[in-house]
Amino acid sequence: MRMFDIIAKKRHGEKLTDGEIKFFVDGYTHGDIPDYQASALCMAICCRGMDEEECSALTYHMMNSGDTVDLSALPCTADKHSTGGVGDLTSLVVAPTLATLGVNIAKMSGRGLGHTGGTIDKLESIPGFCTSLTGEQFMKQVSEIGVAIIGQTADLAPADKKLYALRDVTATVESLPLIASSIMSKKLAAGAETIVLDVKYGSGAFMKTAEDAVELAEAMVKIGRDMGRRMGALVTSMEFPLGRKIGNTLEVIEAVEILRGEIGGDAKTVCVNLAANILSLAKGIEIDDAFAAVNEAIDSGKAYEKFLAWIAAQGGDISYIIENRLPVGKFTREVVAACDGYVCGMDTERVGLASCILGAGRVTKDDEPDLTAGLVLHIDLGEKLTVGQKIATLYTSDSGKLESAEEMLISSLKLSETVPENTPKLIYKIIR
Amino acid sequence: MRMFDIIAKKRHGEKLTDGEIKFFVDGYTHGDIPDYQASALCMAICCRGMDEEECSALTYHMMNSGDTVDLSALPCTADKHSTGGVGDLTSLVVAPTLATLGVNIAKMSGRGLGHTGGTIDKLESIPGFCTSLTGEQFMKQVSEIGVAIIGQTADLAPADKKLYALRDVTATVESLPLIASSIMSKKLAAGAETIVLDVKYGSGAFMKTAEDAVELAEAMVKIGRDMGRRMGALVTSMEFPLGRKIGNTLEVIEAVEILRGEIGGDAKTVCVNLAANILSLAKGIEIDDAFAAVNEAIDSGKAYEKFLAWIAAQGGDISYIIENRLPVGKFTREVVAACDGYVCGMDTERVGLASCILGAGRVTKDDEPDLTAGLVLHIDLGEKLTVGQKIATLYTSDSGKLESAEEMLISSLKLSETVPENTPKLIYKIIR
Repeated sequence: MRMFDIIAKKRHGEKLTDGEIKFFVDGYTHGDIPDYQASALCMAICCRGMDEEECSALTYHMMNSGDTVDLSALPCTADKHSTGGVGDLTSLVVAPTLATLGVNIAKMSGRGLGHTGGTIDKLESIPGFCTSLTGEQFMKQVSEIGVAIIGQTADLAPADKKLYALRDVTATVESLPLIASSIMSKKLAAGAETIVLDVKYGSGAFMKTAEDAVELAEAMVKIGRDMGRRMGALVTSMEFPLGRKIGNTLEVIEAVEILRGEIGGDAKTVCVNLAANILSLAKGIEIDDAFAAVNEAIDSGKAYEKFLAWIAAQGGDISYIIENRLPVGKFTREVVAACDGYVCGMDTERVGLASCILGAGRVTKDDEPDLTAGLVLHIDLGEKLTVGQKIATLYTSDSGKLESAEEMLISSLKLSETVPENTPKLIYKIIR
Repeated sequence: MRMFDIIAKKRHGEKLTDGEIKFFVDGYTHGDIPDYQASALCMAICCRGMDEEECSALTYHMMNSGDTVDLSALPCTADKHSTGGVGDLTSLVVAPTLATLGVNIAKMSGRGLGHTGGTIDKLESIPGFCTSLTGEQFMKQVSEIGVAIIGQTADLAPADKKLYALRDVTATVESLPLIASSIMSKKLAAGAETIVLDVKYGSGAFMKTAEDAVELAEAMVKIGRDMGRRMGALVTSMEFPLGRKIGNTLEVIEAVEILRGEIGGDAKTVCVNLAANILSLAKGIEIDDAFAAVNEAIDSGKAYEKFLAWIAAQGGDISYIIENRLPVGKFTREVVAACDGYVCGMDTERVGLASCILGAGRVTKDDEPDLTAGLVLHIDLGEKLTVGQKIATLYTSDSGKLESAEEMLISSLKLSETVPENTPKLIYKIIR
């Protein structure tokens, strides 16, 4: 078998066999196939596509290019994955909520890069919280309290890691089969029986339109099912930040507010929908019953208690949470509206970048984020603003950053003169 | 400007600007752009195409990536280029014929690689013939006798050389704009005012169909005209070897037979058509007058005399030609028909490979070909064969190669039970 023939075949729009895809994935991972051949194939895939079978084969071989986590010792394991959102704190709420309902969340999560934050960074903003457990500690904690979230320790899908780095510099990222196989190879390697995806659409997301997001979600659900997993997906809007607090500590604070039943809003809605869909799939119960159970878990305070138990189990000092004294950036600035208008959307990528400027994010892998930095939005979609009205509060440890963060945030705001019609649907579609 | 954005633009089917194409060609030639980005762009061009303007820009910048030959001291310079044929001896006949008619042929030519022979190898099969002249010797010889053919000394279109090597291993060779710009960048750098192309179609050619060959020919003619050259092209069949003798010395012998007026046939027809079209374009005369002049040059023996003068000028021992004693391989074998049938075609690539097996060709650049090896065909298109009839004679210096060459040659023969209809047209189209 020759890589040349595989490239030529895809270039001519033909279907690749399982053996050909395996040859490529193995050869590229081991360095037998050079970058210039891999990038030519990726571009051919971008231009000619891949069908469901090819997509499943690519995912399968990338998944098997490294470690796969064996969670079979635990009953009823579940995982969620978001394709990347601004102010997306859902894991922090969904995980403890499900843990109270007999669903085991044994999750490896990532750090943030670019304009969206990572769950691991958010958790580390709680003093003492430890995101690196041994495999044994990890499994023990889940079996005892039903939840653990740690940084990626295992070498999950190294083929994807290498290929993604190449795609990133050869303009071959935006390809449905390549995106789907990239996400799913890592997710499947992480071992959960039930997986529910939150695929974002809009300005701050990979997929700019809801239709494209649905297509991606359906492709990923199909791949997961082909590998025997229970799969579901939500397609949700990223035309506006999900939570009102953006940053690491700030998102933990908002998650706590949701768990305590203090606030509602979009973030809670998505958390409840994710949790209910996972519960329904994982336990095989009706979706209405699942919604009732999830709401009860939150309303009764059980989910909040589980959250505290979880944080404590991983070494976090829960007095900071109980006493509402998680530290936020000491330099603040109130951002106010410069003109009247209705809020018809926000460029969420710019909102995320404003938070990065304040120190909350990473531009390169080696950056150490300021966990106390970020911003709190005081506006809602469709709201009428008047000049001078408070839009947001910025938080940072470096007052020199306030100016440019304010500019970036203001540039993200989309105002209209009249009441906006057709505001984006928060939950566009649920795929089960 | 970033290579990433150029790749993304072409991937989305957009038109690249002259500046973007220059950035790519210069950056890749100087090693600032890595292979993996160049191969991604080549694949995007294969899938999305390039329009005439992009194609001209790519050719122009590749042409200017290295030396360009200045032939302006010579009046009425012309060149021909064939896209690669088996038994294609046309340069050996066309060059001296035109030299008798006031057209200066100052030509750099290549060595053979793969299944087709190179003019330089053929010329070197004449004892004493020298293919490496200094620039001064080259210009002096052309101005004195009107013809010189030498190996490529100047660094013509190094961008194309580097890019072609990459395309060759990334399945991105077969792309009309990339093929056209590759050929034309070298041809234009070689400096002739008038250029006539012989674009082959059929089993042994780049372009498998006559329609594709016409498209390629038209694209190249357009590029050359955009750069102010007088351009023409023939589209000719490679469904059967052009000459009846294939090999290095053997093709020189056939060229001599044509120049002496001893034989006609397809090879002579293509030679006369090429020469007449070049003459008409170079001198601005009617094509009918050009045909008459070319035929007269051959029939009168002037072209043959010029051939001898040319060979002698470059150090060749013309007694071998005059006395018909150019050496051919001492081991021979007669190949005979194994069954009855009509000759409806030959897989010319296999005919070329049979000649290679006998020793006439190069598999890698470093191979030293056996100039005396090759084969002589005794059949014609449409001819009725009977079992045992002689098809070809093989020549080699290594008797161990006869067996597999015979097998390869026999496998090239296409026979039909009935008189073949629709035999391929030798000269499919002339573009002027």
